[in-house]
Amino acid sequence: MRTFKLILQYDGSRYRGWQRLPDCDRTIQGRLEQTLTKLLGEPVELSGSGRTDAGVHAMGQAASFRSRTALSASEILQGLRQHLPEDIGVLSVTEMPERFHARLHAVGKVYRYRIWNSEAPCVFERKYVYQLPQPLDLAAMEKAAGFLTGTHDFRSFCAKKSDKKSTVRTVEEIRIERAGEEVRLSFRGNGFLYQMVRILTGTLIEVGLHRRRPEEMPALLEAEDRALAGWTVPAKGLCLMEVLYE
Amino acid sequence: MRTFKLILQYDGSRYRGWQRLPDCDRTIQGRLEQTLTKLLGEPVELSGSGRTDAGVHAMGQAASFRSRTALSASEILQGLRQHLPEDIGVLSVTEMPERFHARLHAVGKVYRYRIWNSEAPCVFERKYVYQLPQPLDLAAMEKAAGFLTGTHDFRSFCAKKSDKKSTVRTVEEIRIERAGEEVRLSFRGNGFLYQMVRILTGTLIEVGLHRRRPEEMPALLEAEDRALAGWTVPAKGLCLMEVLYE
Repeated sequence: MRTFKLILQYDGSRYRGWQRLPDCDRTIQGRLEQTLTKLLGEPVELSGSGRTDAGVHAMGQAASFRSRTALSASEILQGLRQHLPEDIGVLSVTEMPERFHARLHAVGKVYRYRIWNSEAPCVFERKYVYQLPQPLDLAAMEKAAGFLTGTHDFRSFCAKKSDKKSTVRTVEEIRIERAGEEVRLSFRGNGFLYQMVRILTGTLIEVGLHRRRPEEMPALLEAEDRALAGWTVPAKGLCLMEVLYE
Repeated sequence: MRTFKLILQYDGSRYRGWQRLPDCDRTIQGRLEQTLTKLLGEPVELSGSGRTDAGVHAMGQAASFRSRTALSASEILQGLRQHLPEDIGVLSVTEMPERFHARLHAVGKVYRYRIWNSEAPCVFERKYVYQLPQPLDLAAMEKAAGFLTGTHDFRSFCAKKSDKKSTVRTVEEIRIERAGEEVRLSFRGNGFLYQMVRILTGTLIEVGLHRRRPEEMPALLEAEDRALAGWTVPAKGLCLMEVLYE
């Protein structure tokens, strides 16, 4: 058996998320598995580094699969590019040591949330940003982000649906920057709970709007109660930028 | 009567172009006139600086209209932003001297054509670029562009459909630049014939692919024969960037 790693981009707008669903080819995993199975002439099971929700995008999702194919990595790349729809792009296909697994071996992820922070409309990037015209206090958001960085139990920032046993995660960095009309929040960490980035962003936005104080963050973490954290911002502003491996 | 000037952005993907068509609200002009007429409570006729074809985008289209409205420019701006679809954006509304006319008073235009010049897929900007993986010789394209700049009869670069009497135009500048995976061609001139920018771009691409020599350009202009120039590149890579006024 040979093992291959894919680096993928996708526009999540018209998909029901990463994870394969029965009788539905509107999932990223389903669409890729279909194409790989046709290309390689054998059933292929693709392991993503993790799921992304409906409407979430990726600039650098990683996935792996095993196959008995005789095709080279570059032939697989060409074949996938020919047959995938234009909202799923393959950046690279690499042959890996046989035991490589995109989820089990991932040591971290980088997500970015894009806020179009202007009264002017955002016509061309409208599917990739969350439009919020009210001014944001970035200094307050950065202060709050400081409290959230580090190793914590993030149960307060996790949607109920999560079945993860431990809700302790390490967020190594939260970077907040303004670029023109845009405010971008980047999160780097060893793993993120279900909807955690979107709830962290919603909470930081509430701080930026002066509806919460940065100093409330430690108590919020300690409470371990989802109801106390901010709202879940829309999926379309979120993008999985990179999956980190050793 | 009062006269207002609009600066507009639009994603042309799902429209049949700028110009109003009978019984069709899939035109930019039609959609804007509909919205203005409702907002101002009187029939409004909107004059664009010029037409854009089906699928062509705008970052800075200009248009004007006359009205007896008592609303301020800023109230019109807010009203339009509330009621227009998300693929048409209004950047500004300004009250002008009564005789101002967006087409008659325009002295120039800037268009940009975007080529995604890479084997890697372009997932997120796919509706705004023309994907061409073959390498382009930019130096040759720049040389050819030099021959095309200036005041010429551009009949060879005009689709037959044009009913313009004179086909003489001045192209003040053709700028060609690489930005990452992209090659961008910017055209500034006093006016452009029907499909002229797309035929100029197609011809310059043929030079970039070494299918034509830059030195053929003067003869091409002199021939005044559309059949001798290059192909018409797809609309989706084209964007009207700015309309120039005195």
